[in-house]
Amino acid sequence: MTEESDIAAGGVTRIDPNAFRGADGHLSQDWLDRLRSHLLARDEHDLADMMEPLYAADAGDVLEALNADERVQLVQMLGDKFDYLALTEVDDAIRSELLEELPAGDVARGMSTLDSDDAVYILEDIDSEDREEILAQMPAFERLSLKRSLDFPEDSAGRRMQTEFIAIPPFWTVGQTIDYLRAEQDLPDEFFQLYVVDPSYRVLGTIPLDKFLRAKRQVQIEALMGEVLTVEATEDQEEAARIFERYDLVEIGVVDDNRRLVGVLTVDDMVDVIHEEATEDIKLLGGVGDEEISDSVFRAVRSRAPWLVVNLITAMLASFIISLFDASIEQMVALAALMPIVASMGGNAGTQTMTVTVRALATRDLDRSRVRRLIVREMTGGLINGCIFAVLIGAVTATRYLNPGLGMVIGMAMIVNMIAAGTAGILIPLTLNRMKVDPAIASSVFVTTVTDVVGFFAFLGLAGLWFGLF
Amino acid sequence: MTEESDIAAGGVTRIDPNAFRGADGHLSQDWLDRLRSHLLARDEHDLADMMEPLYAADAGDVLEALNADERVQLVQMLGDKFDYLALTEVDDAIRSELLEELPAGDVARGMSTLDSDDAVYILEDIDSEDREEILAQMPAFERLSLKRSLDFPEDSAGRRMQTEFIAIPPFWTVGQTIDYLRAEQDLPDEFFQLYVVDPSYRVLGTIPLDKFLRAKRQVQIEALMGEVLTVEATEDQEEAARIFERYDLVEIGVVDDNRRLVGVLTVDDMVDVIHEEATEDIKLLGGVGDEEISDSVFRAVRSRAPWLVVNLITAMLASFIISLFDASIEQMVALAALMPIVASMGGNAGTQTMTVTVRALATRDLDRSRVRRLIVREMTGGLINGCIFAVLIGAVTATRYLNPGLGMVIGMAMIVNMIAAGTAGILIPLTLNRMKVDPAIASSVFVTTVTDVVGFFAFLGLAGLWFGLF
Repeated sequence: MTEESDIAAGGVTRIDPNAFRGADGHLSQDWLDRLRSHLLARDEHDLADMMEPLYAADAGDVLEALNADERVQLVQMLGDKFDYLALTEVDDAIRSELLEELPAGDVARGMSTLDSDDAVYILEDIDSEDREEILAQMPAFERLSLKRSLDFPEDSAGRRMQTEFIAIPPFWTVGQTIDYLRAEQDLPDEFFQLYVVDPSYRVLGTIPLDKFLRAKRQVQIEALMGEVLTVEATEDQEEAARIFERYDLVEIGVVDDNRRLVGVLTVDDMVDVIHEEATEDIKLLGGVGDEEISDSVFRAVRSRAPWLVVNLITAMLASFIISLFDASIEQMVALAALMPIVASMGGNAGTQTMTVTVRALATRDLDRSRVRRLIVREMTGGLINGCIFAVLIGAVTATRYLNPGLGMVIGMAMIVNMIAAGTAGILIPLTLNRMKVDPAIASSVFVTTVTDVVGFFAFLGLAGLWFGLF
Repeated sequence: MTEESDIAAGGVTRIDPNAFRGADGHLSQDWLDRLRSHLLARDEHDLADMMEPLYAADAGDVLEALNADERVQLVQMLGDKFDYLALTEVDDAIRSELLEELPAGDVARGMSTLDSDDAVYILEDIDSEDREEILAQMPAFERLSLKRSLDFPEDSAGRRMQTEFIAIPPFWTVGQTIDYLRAEQDLPDEFFQLYVVDPSYRVLGTIPLDKFLRAKRQVQIEALMGEVLTVEATEDQEEAARIFERYDLVEIGVVDDNRRLVGVLTVDDMVDVIHEEATEDIKLLGGVGDEEISDSVFRAVRSRAPWLVVNLITAMLASFIISLFDASIEQMVALAALMPIVASMGGNAGTQTMTVTVRALATRDLDRSRVRRLIVREMTGGLINGCIFAVLIGAVTATRYLNPGLGMVIGMAMIVNMIAAGTAGILIPLTLNRMKVDPAIASSVFVTTVTDVVGFFAFLGLAGLWFGLF
């Protein structure tokens, strides 16, 4: 492997080399062609040989590369050998389509092999009728535990938790626990800590596996227990992710209203949450809704239209402001060419302040003591920037139009608009946040509306006054 | 605790209630006052009692709440009882300032208590002279391992790794390994898997602790080994984080050029990386550099100035385009009021496309097969949006100015600019990415420059032609 291909492959090195990836690190076309020929030949054994060594994320890539019919064929021919975990790694649209085509019984069997968090992740997007049909064909115990998770609000810790965990009483010894773990068949696929509980499943403490491993067999569990962090099942998943991040956790217990342990959150799910929330914020700031790169052009157009409509309205407002100064512009047409500079600089400076504020709110870096300091900072910053750019643009304008008065006017307008930008850039997101609206959604539009309106009004108004154009 | 305060506290529930947080979930003022009074009274014992139960992240909050002198006092009075891990949880500026004030010997002793990844995180920002002084006072073995990490490039896996890990030979049994773990004193603070290595430390396989725990004492390590994912020490930390995310990892081995195991990356560090990278992208898209909420107004102004200067230049370019059409505007002053609408709608639509593209590039969701599809989608989307908003703004304009021709012209200009927006929105980030420039940095400016220039030019030019204004 050359160094380049290694980097493209994400630097992952496997001890058994695998033709699954091409030299560019992407799924290899040869491999895919081979898979397709086995599909055509209905060669179940070779198919299974190709798919079984793959990680779920890679199997997800394979599903995405196939067309809809091939996907259904592949899953059906693999039967019990298909790892349903791969479905957690494909686009929502592809997952829904595939699940609709598969018999409910097959899906139910597939779901039973998954940890409950993964099963819930797959089931939560299916329409409720199909979901009931699938659940009905699952064993009672698993059905009930999935239903309980699905009863929690969307994006809550209860939805993301897995209901498989290891709970032990405090009076056991390390030896007893090891023997139990060795004998018990029905354990979670992965676990990182043990939960010490009382008879009603209230958490008394937790033991990370590394500490547990190092204890002697005769030591009592009670003596090993560490401090307990738990999160409530109704808590927002974003808040839960923040706790993981803050306290460097890999796993946390989830408790119900009665403080009983009902499940656990693991860090891999929280990594996905952190990633999704960041993507959501970036998209909202850019005026894009919940769209995916695989969406059709019509879905993309539809999801973006509301933002464009709002922008159209605010642009017409700015246009109206300008038309108030028709007479001035007619007498001094240079104003028309200069006014967008003032508006654009304000828009940019306002967006800068807003970006910092929105991100600080999202990451909870803005506590009360810092808010006042930040407001002062941004308004002062606006004044300083205003002065700097007033001198710059004032000098350029005075020279270009051989009109020092015009340079003076644009400079003053710049100062006014930069202060407005700093003020709007911080106060608008803070206000939205206080009103429990996600500041990432609407701040951009409001901030640029303010800077456009103030920019045009200040510049054209000052010019009218200065040159007596009214 | 009321429900509200519980949520504000991040939903963290502790079994021993602790006055550290107030009802609003923030660090309590009473607690802080108590700490300050112990500081004044130089009451080491009570100080230690207050600080020792805190998590590192909480101790970091305490440091941030104190002033510079109090911080130094606190650390010095706590002596060996101060947990240097708290320094990984404070702002860079505060950390640097504090470390400069502390004797190198104290810092060296503090660093020795940390896992190497945390020590490197703290040491990498100190200037090299002070760093050498601190390293010189550390035990030779630790000094060498920290120096090796610091020799790797900034933001590489080698910088983020911890050099403490557990490596065992394949011919040991589970029992032998457990006995070794129980006896060995110098183990990592936390570990999630065991590394099976050959005599030259090449990784043969890994064993997650949960699998290991469930194996019987006489089982050979070789029989338990699972597949190996490793990452090269020179690999970018962002790429490493992507591997964690893709394969749901909690820990991965880091290897050198010779494929020897030199350290491990843990998921808590990767969570920080994912978080930092998202913050960086959001800030870059908003035209803000590497600034923090605690920066002074002068630092903030300085870090934002370059973006504003670039924006000034592009705004002057747009202004120049407008001034080419002076004569047209003089004859028909309505053009001045209408032209910002065309430019603003284009800017918005371009930003939408750009946001989707930049995020897809950052998350590696854009492979080659999808690029062509996306380009077609965005250009078509631009055409569709152009037509929709052409009709809207055309009708409004024709009515407002009682001038159907003007409505026609603004409609056509809208279509042209929306297509330009879609095209620029996707091609500019793709081109920057191909040129190995982070598309988040510069895309915004280029995209809005295109939509401003095309918007003004198309609208004023078409109007000039239609009404014969030249």
